[in-house]
Amino acid sequence: MSNISTEELINQLEALDTSKMYLNDFLLTWDKKNDEIDAVFKTAWLLSMLRKNNISAKVFDSGLGISIFRDNSTRTRFSFASACNLLGLAVADLDEGKSQIAHGETVRETANMVSFMADIIGIRDDMYIGKGNAYMKEVATAVDDGYKKGILEQRPTLVNLQCDIDHPTQSMADAMHLINTFGGIENLKGKKIAMTWAYSPSYGKPLSVPQGIIGLMTRFGMEVALAHPKGYEVMQEVEKTAADNAAKSGGTLKKTNDIEEAFENADIVYPKSWAPFEAMKNRTDYYGAGDFKAIKNLEKELLAQNAEHTDWECSEKLMKLTNKGKALYMHCLPADITGVSCKKGEVEASVFDRYKIPLYQQAGYKPYIIAAMIFLSKFKNPAKSISSLIKKDEKRICQR
Amino acid sequence: MSNISTEELINQLEALDTSKMYLNDFLLTWDKKNDEIDAVFKTAWLLSMLRKNNISAKVFDSGLGISIFRDNSTRTRFSFASACNLLGLAVADLDEGKSQIAHGETVRETANMVSFMADIIGIRDDMYIGKGNAYMKEVATAVDDGYKKGILEQRPTLVNLQCDIDHPTQSMADAMHLINTFGGIENLKGKKIAMTWAYSPSYGKPLSVPQGIIGLMTRFGMEVALAHPKGYEVMQEVEKTAADNAAKSGGTLKKTNDIEEAFENADIVYPKSWAPFEAMKNRTDYYGAGDFKAIKNLEKELLAQNAEHTDWECSEKLMKLTNKGKALYMHCLPADITGVSCKKGEVEASVFDRYKIPLYQQAGYKPYIIAAMIFLSKFKNPAKSISSLIKKDEKRICQR
Amino acid sequence: MSNISTEELINQLEALDTSKMYLNDFLLTWDKKNDEIDAVFKTAWLLSMLRKNNISAKVFDSGLGISIFRDNSTRTRFSFASACNLLGLAVADLDEGKSQIAHGETVRETANMVSFMADIIGIRDDMYIGKGNAYMKEVATAVDDGYKKGILEQRPTLVNLQCDIDHPTQSMADAMHLINTFGGIENLKGKKIAMTWAYSPSYGKPLSVPQGIIGLMTRFGMEVALAHPKGYEVMQEVEKTAADNAAKSGGTLKKTNDIEEAFENADIVYPKSWAPFEAMKNRTDYYGAGDFKAIKNLEKELLAQNAEHTDWECSEKLMKLTNKGKALYMHCLPADITGVSCKKGEVEASVFDRYKIPLYQQAGYKPYIIAAMIFLSKFKNPAKSISSLIKKDEKRICQR
Repeated sequence: MSNISTEELINQLEALDTSKMYLNDFLLTWDKKNDEIDAVFKTAWLLSMLRKNNISAKVFDSGLGISIFRDNSTRTRFSFASACNLLGLAVADLDEGKSQIAHGETVRETANMVSFMADIIGIRDDMYIGKGNAYMKEVATAVDDGYKKGILEQRPTLVNLQCDIDHPTQSMADAMHLINTFGGIENLKGKKIAMTWAYSPSYGKPLSVPQGIIGLMTRFGMEVALAHPKGYEVMQEVEKTAADNAAKSGGTLKKTNDIEEAFENADIVYPKSWAPFEAMKNRTDYYGAGDFKAIKNLEKELLAQNAEHTDWECSEKLMKLTNKGKALYMHCLPADITGVSCKKGEVEASVFDRYKIPLYQQAGYKPYIIAAMIFLSKFKNPAKSISSLIKKDEKRICQR
Repeated sequence: MSNISTEELINQLEALDTSKMYLNDFLLTWDKKNDEIDAVFKTAWLLSMLRKNNISAKVFDSGLGISIFRDNSTRTRFSFASACNLLGLAVADLDEGKSQIAHGETVRETANMVSFMADIIGIRDDMYIGKGNAYMKEVATAVDDGYKKGILEQRPTLVNLQCDIDHPTQSMADAMHLINTFGGIENLKGKKIAMTWAYSPSYGKPLSVPQGIIGLMTRFGMEVALAHPKGYEVMQEVEKTAADNAAKSGGTLKKTNDIEEAFENADIVYPKSWAPFEAMKNRTDYYGAGDFKAIKNLEKELLAQNAEHTDWECSEKLMKLTNKGKALYMHCLPADITGVSCKKGEVEASVFDRYKIPLYQQAGYKPYIIAAMIFLSKFKNPAKSISSLIKKDEKRICQR
Repeated sequence: MSNISTEELINQLEALDTSKMYLNDFLLTWDKKNDEIDAVFKTAWLLSMLRKNNISAKVFDSGLGISIFRDNSTRTRFSFASACNLLGLAVADLDEGKSQIAHGETVRETANMVSFMADIIGIRDDMYIGKGNAYMKEVATAVDDGYKKGILEQRPTLVNLQCDIDHPTQSMADAMHLINTFGGIENLKGKKIAMTWAYSPSYGKPLSVPQGIIGLMTRFGMEVALAHPKGYEVMQEVEKTAADNAAKSGGTLKKTNDIEEAFENADIVYPKSWAPFEAMKNRTDYYGAGDFKAIKNLEKELLAQNAEHTDWECSEKLMKLTNKGKALYMHCLPADITGVSCKKGEVEASVFDRYKIPLYQQAGYKPYIIAAMIFLSKFKNPAKSISSLIKKDEKRICQR
């Protein structure tokens, strides 16, 4: 978006309908209208411009961003902390290990208890199929109710920091990377992106990235190829959503079990391991039933199943099949790099090495994407609010 | 306090003598004069009004609130974080697990080492009888001395976030809930509150809540009924304090071993499990002596003792005995709810469910109570300071 | 520095050449010129003056200070948090336990991933010889590269919070303590400081403190005596650096294996346990090779070796040998105090007790030293920036 002036971008943002984002959550990209998706990109870019120009974006004088990480996280944790800090919120992490959350304490109770002064709640819960997004909705309902009943002075808004269905802060950062790489959202039309499974010696990686990618990229008129070995199907509903999106945007969604077909003439490749949806559903049931023997067996099976597909590696040979051999390689990181982080993995070291800079840039959009999601949930007229910040021109760092 | 105008409340606050609170700790409610207790309620309410009106209460431009949680905590942890954030302090948690606190390092040393830039120290230490409050006093003495000797540039003030004797942020939030439920502190006069033991399948719950409640509620001219099975006596000194308070305020403190008697015609009921004081004292000694066999035995005994009193449950039947069958049910949360968090617990699910909203509101006062305690320890003329904030009218969230 | 006016100190600071500190790291004191070392002291003092006068030093409106503690820490953790808070930065701790740092993930990747909005990165990594400082340099190179390649919007600056070679925030705070105790940096000329080994029943204490002390104190024209039993040699390169420093500053560096000789007529004594450099090097190799049997044996050997030197204790008898029997006793804390934290330790309890106040004061300089290091890495003309703060006169705590 660097080819558009700040003023012009603010005007474009003003023209978008963001009214439904105000005081609302960001859980799934496909819950959001095109205007809303676009507003996130534009707001993210404008916030990054403010920061580059040492203009404070501190719209909160005080306030809390609650984070609930039900899995380990570095990138997203620091992105959330960065986004909150940029806007003036302090992070308060609900570390369930250190918390006195009683056995059987309801989500409703905990949600209200931590939210008395919360402006934002960011949640990562991506481990169990059928659980993460449901948990977020439960929290959303609880704080909705808490606000209506006068328990909470305000309704904190939720940001999905990865669930079992979608990973919107990742896919949106990825899309922003594409927009900037290809010189505009309009240039994504007709570009081919290969979202492919890749071999990893570890098991049970979440489906939210491939699902998030096909659910979002199909909206920009892209040719989305979803490739994986048989048995590695993703959620059917998300596939359906992606197909619908493609139909509407003039793009395509093509499924294949042939990685070469997917790489063929691709402009972008996103090779990444994930676990089969059905197996993950079973795992959730086994956990529910406390059947650890079944879990152990499942793990063994899945690792064996993975091992049949070690050829699903983003190799130099495969890269040659892409458009002029120069497709943009993407990954949400950390990647399993052959000979670096494992014997055999998702990507050949030489490919990964060549794309390190763009990969890190790709990750670098996430803090701004999260900040934009927060911003749009808190300001009715985001364009006007950003203009005010520019006019006020408070320095982030004192003149030096 | 919603029936009083902000101006009027500020005037009332100005009339109270809070001079001794300035640069002083808040450890036990009964260390505080009536004016001081009242000032906490009024300041808490005013701070909540500021926030509701989007007026910043950030009196600290920078500064640290140190928290020391020697037990797990959600509500109090988030309440402390919220209070600090509201006033402009960043929380720095002394996680003793991650700290290089040498074997045998004195409390005096640690207290000084973490306090160089501390404005506030909040401590929860409620596990061992004879320990928690003593620890707080030790920290207080250490920073007193540190300040006098020129080690610390200022004397950080302490807030008791629960000790073995009192839980002032809880009991004060509870009282504020009552004030707002009954339409004013003056309306508490003559109201009957039943602070009763209740059955729980877990063991060793702290005594600080019942002690805090009888120590505080007796000051408002209330009829306080303390009910528990024989053998579940609380600290004698606190009972004595409560009786003295009642005598002075024109209220009563009545002890009984009959829960029905306590519930009879009560306006408020607070049924909650706790451990017998004497047993807890023994446990402290056993820990001191490293006698884990004795601890194990004690646990077994106490669970068996609890099990004799499963009828001490806040049931619908008991609730019918209260004033018009409509007493306000209170709990510090989380509660042991029969059929929800345990097979048999402190309260019947239908009772708990009916009171969820007021229970959550009750909890919601805690951040403001803590903020008020901090505020009163830092500002000589709190009424004037709050007036200044209103006049300054800095927005907490930018105009939107 | 209390005998110099703020104005005069600002003038003195302005006269120093700090241009190379701007946007630069602080890793080793001996990488820094005399002007730069002096600028840290003066800036630290000025920042402490601001705070004492309730003038805000918040030069960052928002921003992050990343901390990476690869060992437990209380003093340094709170000092870093205090320094960041003083200047307006929020701390985001990279807790490697809670992070999704992939097996084999490169330092380069992690460093970039956490730095998108980082102003400062503070690192403690002092456990393994040859590792800590190397790690810091790796991080520095990574963010350098990240900045150059456009991944990072700015180059965060690094502060060494203790490595295997130096502990600059400690030694600089120690030096500031000496400057204030002896009434000026010029008064350190000719003073004798005994940096001596001392017995401890624990094993493997880091060498960074003695190394940091001899590397820094030799620059002020002091007579530095380094004393330890045979076999407890420190890093040769640091000894060489210290000797060179002494030659340049007109001071001396004298090595001895006789603690009495070191204490003889000393103005300052700094008795502290450390592990032999060669043994620590071997330990690093054993860890590298995963040879836990060798590590176990080494531990046994080292404890036995320590036990031969229980007479290396800072006793009253030894203290009598010092200048008028009144040398200033120093320690980085926590100390192993005979009869307090262990049966037999580094220092007699009566000696330690007598020096508690100065010891705590010594520790109290660290937050300001760290803040000064940050400040000088972020402001081109620190004297002017501090003048601006004084002129602006924003209150740290609202008028009260």
